[in-house]
Amino acid sequence: MANSTLTLKRLGIDTYHEAVLYMNRNCHVCRSEGFVAQSRVQVTLGDRHLIATLNVVASQMLEECEASLSESAWLALGAQEGSQIHVGHPDPLESVSALRAKVYGQRLGDAAWREIVTDIVNGHYSNLHLAALVTACAGDRMDADETLSLTRAMVETGERLTWQSPVVVDKHCVGGLPGNRTTLIVVPIVAAAGLIIPKTSSRAITSPAGTADTMEVMAPVGLDVKQMRRVVESEGGCIVWGGNVRLSPADDLLIRVERPLDFDSEGHLVASVLSKKIAAGSTHVVIDMPVGPTAKVRSVEAARALRERFETVGAALGISVDVQVSDGSQPVGRGIGPALEARDVLAVLRREADAPDDLRERALNLAAHVLEMSPQVKAGTGARMAAQILDSGRAWTKFLAICEAQGGFREPQVAPLTRTIVSQHTGECVAVDNRRIAQVAKLAGAPLSRAAGVDLHVRLGQRVERGAALYTIHAEAPGERDYALSFATHHPDIVRVESR
Amino acid sequence: MANSTLTLKRLGIDTYHEAVLYMNRNCHVCRSEGFVAQSRVQVTLGDRHLIATLNVVASQMLEECEASLSESAWLALGAQEGSQIHVGHPDPLESVSALRAKVYGQRLGDAAWREIVTDIVNGHYSNLHLAALVTACAGDRMDADETLSLTRAMVETGERLTWQSPVVVDKHCVGGLPGNRTTLIVVPIVAAAGLIIPKTSSRAITSPAGTADTMEVMAPVGLDVKQMRRVVESEGGCIVWGGNVRLSPADDLLIRVERPLDFDSEGHLVASVLSKKIAAGSTHVVIDMPVGPTAKVRSVEAARALRERFETVGAALGISVDVQVSDGSQPVGRGIGPALEARDVLAVLRREADAPDDLRERALNLAAHVLEMSPQVKAGTGARMAAQILDSGRAWTKFLAICEAQGGFREPQVAPLTRTIVSQHTGECVAVDNRRIAQVAKLAGAPLSRAAGVDLHVRLGQRVERGAALYTIHAEAPGERDYALSFATHHPDIVRVESR
Repeated sequence: MANSTLTLKRLGIDTYHEAVLYMNRNCHVCRSEGFVAQSRVQVTLGDRHLIATLNVVASQMLEECEASLSESAWLALGAQEGSQIHVGHPDPLESVSALRAKVYGQRLGDAAWREIVTDIVNGHYSNLHLAALVTACAGDRMDADETLSLTRAMVETGERLTWQSPVVVDKHCVGGLPGNRTTLIVVPIVAAAGLIIPKTSSRAITSPAGTADTMEVMAPVGLDVKQMRRVVESEGGCIVWGGNVRLSPADDLLIRVERPLDFDSEGHLVASVLSKKIAAGSTHVVIDMPVGPTAKVRSVEAARALRERFETVGAALGISVDVQVSDGSQPVGRGIGPALEARDVLAVLRREADAPDDLRERALNLAAHVLEMSPQVKAGTGARMAAQILDSGRAWTKFLAICEAQGGFREPQVAPLTRTIVSQHTGECVAVDNRRIAQVAKLAGAPLSRAAGVDLHVRLGQRVERGAALYTIHAEAPGERDYALSFATHHPDIVRVESR
Repeated sequence: MANSTLTLKRLGIDTYHEAVLYMNRNCHVCRSEGFVAQSRVQVTLGDRHLIATLNVVASQMLEECEASLSESAWLALGAQEGSQIHVGHPDPLESVSALRAKVYGQRLGDAAWREIVTDIVNGHYSNLHLAALVTACAGDRMDADETLSLTRAMVETGERLTWQSPVVVDKHCVGGLPGNRTTLIVVPIVAAAGLIIPKTSSRAITSPAGTADTMEVMAPVGLDVKQMRRVVESEGGCIVWGGNVRLSPADDLLIRVERPLDFDSEGHLVASVLSKKIAAGSTHVVIDMPVGPTAKVRSVEAARALRERFETVGAALGISVDVQVSDGSQPVGRGIGPALEARDVLAVLRREADAPDDLRERALNLAAHVLEMSPQVKAGTGARMAAQILDSGRAWTKFLAICEAQGGFREPQVAPLTRTIVSQHTGECVAVDNRRIAQVAKLAGAPLSRAAGVDLHVRLGQRVERGAALYTIHAEAPGERDYALSFATHHPDIVRVESR
């Protein structure tokens, strides 16, 4: 099929992760193959191929014998200016009938989940297919067996790490609680104690900062598997972004549509967490599950169901899961946004006098549970051990060593623009809306503007005078500051103060 | 916000219906507003605005002060080369919490459906949101009240026609049966009898041909409301494409994601059909519902449920619905694909000796039911009346007159390339897979290659010798012919012949 060959020209169009092929409307391939805008096409370059969505170009931007690719597709194919690509019809999607069955409410078995996940990892799903799958699984629409099948398929379709140690630990927070950046404290404590903790973290999905975003303010996180292995072998632990290590790559692709849709599913949540841990070679994991009216998990019943799901699936896949339900009624620490959260983390590690107590206590409690997963650590002694490691400065030393091994430590930046929201009346702080305060931080530019976010000045139960500062918006650009401010002004109850 | 203004440059990128804004990566608006690839942005030009998905361009294709729009967005805003646009953050989606509630399985009320449909019509939903909505409603996930709310909202957010006649009739087929092109015969019969039948049809969604595609082979169908009105006022009926008349525009937008996803929902199906008919000013509608193992409606129980839904919703909205369940076990007529189906329709209208009997009988039966909806026509006399109009040539004369009024009649074209599939053994034809035979026609290029498709040579129950022709693939391009042939070869049971 020599005449279906086209010459690549780089237009540099970034569509986020969606693979898009651009072709001239009068191109002979379009005509002979019957392609039109929105067609799914298979693009082959050498021995690599992917499936892309076609956009048809009517202008002279592309000649009739030329084509271009969106940036992510360009990189995935290892394309060069002038590369020859072959464009053809993709094979019918293997898993499309399984997807349809799931959409219509049927349960899927092991083989069907494997088909779906394989198609996702091979880039065969369009954003529409991914959105349909995420929606079909939303809420509680997957049972425990399906969750198990999905988790297994996700592990099997990515890389998998192994370590020399019989015990490899990890921790994870199910999220929804702004500022809950305990990972950056737990990892150095646990690694300083001699355990292996190969931690991969995500960037923000719907929140103002992911652990990877916050860590990146202080050290590089974009390590590949080889670099990650070197860090863990020398320091016992790492805190790297999961996106470059291809552990459970299907998960990353599902998350790319969950972010703009702003909803997810219980089954995918469990599969997402456990597949990453199993692929990272972990044998034990502590899961922090904050519960509160505006946290991700809203009720004790929901937490119980989710814990059971984690434990059942974990047991079936040979990973020991310890779920710790915690208070999710308000943000943790003071900062919300990458740099502001990093500042709080550093204050705890450096044992500064004004370090946020709640962040310190949460981190110590989780570290204790992680430590006690080791057969070397006696039950009941984890808490004292964790505190000693933190208070002696060994955790701080270890954190610096990990940062150096990852590429070098740097101090977080401070945003140039701030605006403070004050209380309209005198009383007691009775509620903080986690979702809305996170929204303010996002409008202010977090996580992409690293120094942007919100600094919270009050805690639940605190007495507040009229005119006292409730929180401060930090921004890097005036437009973002104004959006955040306008939203804050329209929602005066984000931090609720009532006279009692 | 003068500094959020950019100058438009037409790049001519056709993304199908998705609104995409292209901006330079270093553009000051991107930077000050914190926009990144995949951000949803509001684009304003004069007094028009829409919401688009951002693609960020790294090359010199666009200067820092320039922007471009995908073709559909360019047209929607009435843009010109050099137009000044303002780009900003969109207001939060009014209906996003209603959408999320539906995704999580809750019932939505009238107001919520109106919010959703208004946001869709105003172009505020991304393809991901549309895919989520379609998935959340898939199968039977909408009840009768929700279907009613959706139908009403769809009618209210588009144009609405009115006619001088107290009785305005229509017919619709729920689809899934290749070649079932009765509309093109029923409309001229009914119009020749003096009734008003302002028929709008869709293009193919997941099938090898929609009625509009088939009609377009013989006459223009892209009429606007004014032109459509003129045709109906002079001829009593028309067969035009619904896409240019903006009756129930939300429906067109939902369909654009249902097509690539290849599934739909009962609730949306009913809302889609009834909203179009009500907006077209119809008072009575006959619905043809073919039932068969590979048709859209698979069982008599499913047909009954769907009929009840049509009748309930129709009654609540003041339109009389008569559902006719028909045999959906095999394609109708011989041709599958626009030109091949047009050929069959013309054979019936011209009373040719080899005209397909089943197409004729189905059309006469439906025409009889439509005619009897008129108070002027006595019950039981519709069938004879329809046959008289067809056999006397009055239907053919009326069809030609309608075609002329729509812009002129033309004969269907014949495809240059054909390939015939023959039976591997001798026996009786026991099954035809409607879905797979449609797939062959689509791979051959239908509906975009008008002359492409499949010509079926055998009917259920027919005796077939080894080596006898089962069906012929018609194609306009060698690539498409080969894809269809390869699929046909891999699925030898599309037409199943068994010795008995």
